[in-house]
Amino acid sequence: MSASEVSRKAVVLLSGGLDSATTLAMARAEGFDCHTLAFDYGQRHRGELAAAAAVAEQLGAAEHRVMRLDLGAIGGSALTDPEIEVPDEPGRGIPVTYVPARNTIFLSLALGWAEVLGAWDIFIGANAVDYSGYPDCRPEYIGAFERMANQALKVTVEGEGHLRIRTPLMELSKAAIIAAGHDLGVDYARTTSCYDPDEDGRACGVCDSCRLRAAGFAEAGVPDPTPYRG
Amino acid sequence: MSASEVSRKAVVLLSGGLDSATTLAMARAEGFDCHTLAFDYGQRHRGELAAAAAVAEQLGAAEHRVMRLDLGAIGGSALTDPEIEVPDEPGRGIPVTYVPARNTIFLSLALGWAEVLGAWDIFIGANAVDYSGYPDCRPEYIGAFERMANQALKVTVEGEGHLRIRTPLMELSKAAIIAAGHDLGVDYARTTSCYDPDEDGRACGVCDSCRLRAAGFAEAGVPDPTPYRG
Repeated sequence: MSASEVSRKAVVLLSGGLDSATTLAMARAEGFDCHTLAFDYGQRHRGELAAAAAVAEQLGAAEHRVMRLDLGAIGGSALTDPEIEVPDEPGRGIPVTYVPARNTIFLSLALGWAEVLGAWDIFIGANAVDYSGYPDCRPEYIGAFERMANQALKVTVEGEGHLRIRTPLMELSKAAIIAAGHDLGVDYARTTSCYDPDEDGRACGVCDSCRLRAAGFAEAGVPDPTPYRG
Repeated sequence: MSASEVSRKAVVLLSGGLDSATTLAMARAEGFDCHTLAFDYGQRHRGELAAAAAVAEQLGAAEHRVMRLDLGAIGGSALTDPEIEVPDEPGRGIPVTYVPARNTIFLSLALGWAEVLGAWDIFIGANAVDYSGYPDCRPEYIGAFERMANQALKVTVEGEGHLRIRTPLMELSKAAIIAAGHDLGVDYARTTSCYDPDEDGRACGVCDSCRLRAAGFAEAGVPDPTPYRG
């Protein structure tokens, strides 16, 4: 590893959810100056963006940016397309809340920022355990993205260093994620996971994401600070 | 190749320039219904977007979309950052007009749309001959992106087909591109290549891009329809 490869900067993708908050805490614990990036991509629940900003502040991010992204123009997901209903029941296979090529798009924009910053590490809270229905949350995908990224940048092609896509949550259960984040001081009350929160940001408690989250707190033996409605 | 892999639809990235116009003509000549995509990413010369729409219409695209993209938020290029001057002289190595991770970002968004459309082919006018300073215009990069894309989508991971990144211009000289597009009926007067056009969209004639374009028309023996200023 050459001297130029050492950088204290990392780009961390932040959604406002539990997983990315824990990922940020892990990157901070490794000593990185964390440049966090959230996307305003037409998601139905705007509270995500406020949660991302609150998490970045609580965990001492060096800088937090929000990028507007017109994903609605390509449609295809219940999270961005108002014509598709969000299901109440967990289904099998790939959920209707899948956003086409979402991690590829988010990682690509993080990659551009990493190059500008001179960062060699991009952190994403991808997890293959609870969300195995998402192809872009698998290690095979992350490895392929990393290989592509190292062909894409002038700094990597010119041999100055190696870009790493970091996925510290990849093999962790939801309970293990919560236990780790709890130990690192993550304030999970600031995070939001619900696919269908009410106007005050309170969680529905019945969607896939709420069920996984609640079960994770229970299994980890950590009090669940999530505000649920009625 | 399974029956489900056959699709007449393709996504074609369209910049308003000469290369992507020729790429669209080639995709049309292969019989594809072409869904063209341009990006409003804060580029200085807004005439690009009008040119892309005019090219899509002239060459019979099935549909043309423009996606807003807040690339200015990550900075780093003379094309989007007003603090960086566009050079008059061709330089060596990677030009200052390089946009960080640009093709990765553009291809990722095209990938999302391809999945929604059910298209297996994405066309991009990447060329390794004239623009060898851009790492994301090399065949090694395109191959790595294609491998990543086939790990990213539920349809490819579930084995329904194979996503292809098509680069018909990759090994062609500028003259060969112009000759091929001329034969396919591309109206190059509708395209724009200049890094620094005037308010009426007339080309400067001295930037890297203008020089390559003019030399290409001369070498191909095709009249240059480019409007140059004074």
